[in-house]
Amino acid sequence: MTLTIDINSDLGEGYGIWQMGDDARMLDLVSSANVACGFHAGDPQTILTTVRAAAARGVAIGAHISYPDRVGFGRRPMDLSQAELCADAIYQIGALQGICTAAGTRLRYVKPHGALYNTIAINARQGAAVIEAICAVDPDLILMGLAGAPILRQAAEAGLATVAEAFADRAYAPTGQLVSRREPGAVLHDPEMIARRMLRLATEGVIEAIDGSPLRLHADSICVHGDSPDAVSVAARIRAVLQIGGVSIRSFTEVSA
Amino acid sequence: MTLTIDINSDLGEGYGIWQMGDDARMLDLVSSANVACGFHAGDPQTILTTVRAAAARGVAIGAHISYPDRVGFGRRPMDLSQAELCADAIYQIGALQGICTAAGTRLRYVKPHGALYNTIAINARQGAAVIEAICAVDPDLILMGLAGAPILRQAAEAGLATVAEAFADRAYAPTGQLVSRREPGAVLHDPEMIARRMLRLATEGVIEAIDGSPLRLHADSICVHGDSPDAVSVAARIRAVLQIGGVSIRSFTEVSA
Amino acid sequence: MTLTIDINSDLGEGYGIWQMGDDARMLDLVSSANVACGFHAGDPQTILTTVRAAAARGVAIGAHISYPDRVGFGRRPMDLSQAELCADAIYQIGALQGICTAAGTRLRYVKPHGALYNTIAINARQGAAVIEAICAVDPDLILMGLAGAPILRQAAEAGLATVAEAFADRAYAPTGQLVSRREPGAVLHDPEMIARRMLRLATEGVIEAIDGSPLRLHADSICVHGDSPDAVSVAARIRAVLQIGGVSIRSFTEVSA
Amino acid sequence: MTLTIDINSDLGEGYGIWQMGDDARMLDLVSSANVACGFHAGDPQTILTTVRAAAARGVAIGAHISYPDRVGFGRRPMDLSQAELCADAIYQIGALQGICTAAGTRLRYVKPHGALYNTIAINARQGAAVIEAICAVDPDLILMGLAGAPILRQAAEAGLATVAEAFADRAYAPTGQLVSRREPGAVLHDPEMIARRMLRLATEGVIEAIDGSPLRLHADSICVHGDSPDAVSVAARIRAVLQIGGVSIRSFTEVSA
Repeated sequence: MTLTIDINSDLGEGYGIWQMGDDARMLDLVSSANVACGFHAGDPQTILTTVRAAAARGVAIGAHISYPDRVGFGRRPMDLSQAELCADAIYQIGALQGICTAAGTRLRYVKPHGALYNTIAINARQGAAVIEAICAVDPDLILMGLAGAPILRQAAEAGLATVAEAFADRAYAPTGQLVSRREPGAVLHDPEMIARRMLRLATEGVIEAIDGSPLRLHADSICVHGDSPDAVSVAARIRAVLQIGGVSIRSFTEVSA
Repeated sequence: MTLTIDINSDLGEGYGIWQMGDDARMLDLVSSANVACGFHAGDPQTILTTVRAAAARGVAIGAHISYPDRVGFGRRPMDLSQAELCADAIYQIGALQGICTAAGTRLRYVKPHGALYNTIAINARQGAAVIEAICAVDPDLILMGLAGAPILRQAAEAGLATVAEAFADRAYAPTGQLVSRREPGAVLHDPEMIARRMLRLATEGVIEAIDGSPLRLHADSICVHGDSPDAVSVAARIRAVLQIGGVSIRSFTEVSA
Repeated sequence: MTLTIDINSDLGEGYGIWQMGDDARMLDLVSSANVACGFHAGDPQTILTTVRAAAARGVAIGAHISYPDRVGFGRRPMDLSQAELCADAIYQIGALQGICTAAGTRLRYVKPHGALYNTIAINARQGAAVIEAICAVDPDLILMGLAGAPILRQAAEAGLATVAEAFADRAYAPTGQLVSRREPGAVLHDPEMIARRMLRLATEGVIEAIDGSPLRLHADSICVHGDSPDAVSVAARIRAVLQIGGVSIRSFTEVSA
Repeated sequence: MTLTIDINSDLGEGYGIWQMGDDARMLDLVSSANVACGFHAGDPQTILTTVRAAAARGVAIGAHISYPDRVGFGRRPMDLSQAELCADAIYQIGALQGICTAAGTRLRYVKPHGALYNTIAINARQGAAVIEAICAVDPDLILMGLAGAPILRQAAEAGLATVAEAFADRAYAPTGQLVSRREPGAVLHDPEMIARRMLRLATEGVIEAIDGSPLRLHADSICVHGDSPDAVSVAARIRAVLQIGGVSIRSFTEVSA
């Protein structure tokens, strides 16, 4: 039996003339691409270009849906009604599906972005709106969420397939929650240390919490950020260390198929 | 043999708190609904509500795609590149498809809006971008365009089905072109006169031009505007006069099926 | 000595082609106009037209600043950083000042809108951002806020002049807070009853709370909404009853001058 | 007598999380900063930061007004009505004035951006709308425009002070017009050659046209672009060569004072 894990990254996050990250190089390193849908980032041409590039490399494509807050990059909590959020999600998923079809591929999963991601991890009302949207557009779409968060169970109970992800560059509390970015040590920078943490996660299902205690965590996917200057080198190192350690990098969509 | 014609109207053109027209009453009078896609009007919740209401009445749904110009309501010519326009069209069509699926129905046609409509009627480069978008997302979608305009032939040559529409409340030049809104007599207001013109068009294929000469015009659909104060009464009168005159109101999607 | 009170209303809240309320008629009834600044409503042309009309009638003009959320009409709480909110407020106030200058008048006050209004009433951090913005652009601008709310004291301590407003069509809790719109009886509809409440407020400084108890409330201004179907008749009735009762309607900017 | 010339650059062109160019380094090299106003680029926080940085260095600040087209970066021609364009310009100038005041400085000039710049250079109707806006907000603001273009005379006839600018990295036709970017040789890249051209322009009032002929051109300011990878080195070389050649770099606002 072979150990496999998925690596995902947020891509297509330019807007008009503005670029973000090195999508072309990241696409060579990941197995899943969370593609912006236009609400926090991504204009139609950027999205189409990103989807075409992902499809050409066989990278699985997800809709990276967001609150409607471009100037805040979807990172600011917003109190939308359930009906507003559900419709916003349907619209974005549909737009990505259309672009995937135009690029000769198809949409496989949905990953909420930024503040929406953090909110639905624990807010069942907003979570229900996203789940309702996915079920209404295509119940075969997989929901990607924070490993250990209530949203994954909520989605599963609604009949959706789910994927749990861990964050490569983030510290974890012993409870399994992410350490807030406002606290010291919350963001990790050493590629070698990050890569070894991910290898242990993939092989043992354990990640070391910020207090040094071993934390059991089931993760199907590893999220690597694409927008920091050293993103490509971190992602490359994770990939290399995983492969050396006998872990195959494969999209969860292939595994489940 | 029964004469049939389609009646279409622009709907879902509110935005957030702002309303436009009386969509509920118009949906009882038309056989096809051109639904805004968010670029000139229509937020996701408004679009979803409109699509659900149209589906409940069996009204065929089209994507009313536009330039990205909400503050100008898509009425201001914009010089987009072909790649920009194609991607914008794919995105909007995809979003509408997603919303149609969520509402338990499906998208049947595409009608460009406002300045985009007028531009592609005669601008082959922008027309090609829209045609390419439709072919890429779903070549079974029908393109609705101005009766007699070059875009219809251009689309047909690309393999798309097309629908020619006439404008109920507009005067025609003897050449078949619409009289510019800036000229006197360009917009018609008398419901009875408008209805009689449409009956003659549906039964004889003739409309009286502004100089009184008879103009041969083939139209599969009649466009009635939904945003003027007397829109509902004009549409109701057209419908009544057509039915009294033996013309059945049916969506072109049913006729072609 | 003459009793005077100000009447204010939210105006200029159209956007592009979309209209809201009957600004022309409301401007004949109010002494202060809270003019949208483009973030929740109001495009430049609509704002300019509104400001010109207000100036022509001698109505005082305030900047109705908002979170950047047009599709949500600024009614959805957003968690902006203090720096973001301060810059957003400066930008909006500056834009209104420019339009006032172009219309031959000048900006007199600032009234936060919707969710921002409710948030800063009690959230000192966001309140500080708005106060900092006003001080930075023009410390002679007056801040309008909810009668009895902490923001008024916070602004006064920062050296700003303030105006306390009461809401004509809202029920009050015995604590002085507005009854939430989600509770029964929160919104009042009877013009006669509303007008009598405002007369008592203006003459006695007392408003009857929802439990029937008399609530002492100091208000310099009465807010009447402009967007409901009967807004004009309610505002007209308030104005008439106040004048019959010996209360003069004057902008607080004239009173303080 | 000392020869002086101004160097200007487009700055503050980030949006939210997205950066553009190296504003901090460019501000050390220019004497005038064309600051984005939010319509093609620039959110309030970015604009405020840019204006503060410019003010700290004594760099003159201009409002870089644009068509409302963020996704197209203001580079796509749009057919606005004169009333729309005038109000859009007033709004943007006002917003920049407010931000300048908050930063303890003041706005000195207006430079239209992108497609608006090119359009008003020759389109008197749109030019009139911009001129009307400037006169209405502050007739002491200076209009910066293309050296030799009709807009400069049109503005002067309306009583505005004007500044003529030349483009450092662009080839000129013998007629004085810029060679279209679509033609070979339109954009220059060699810093040394660019710097020498600008020295000759500043000292002799002559620039070599693309056919080698000497072109007489009066320019008060040199525009250097800030968004290309080698922008800083080009600007630094121009500055150095001018100073070595005895030309002092000074804002036109100081010269005219």
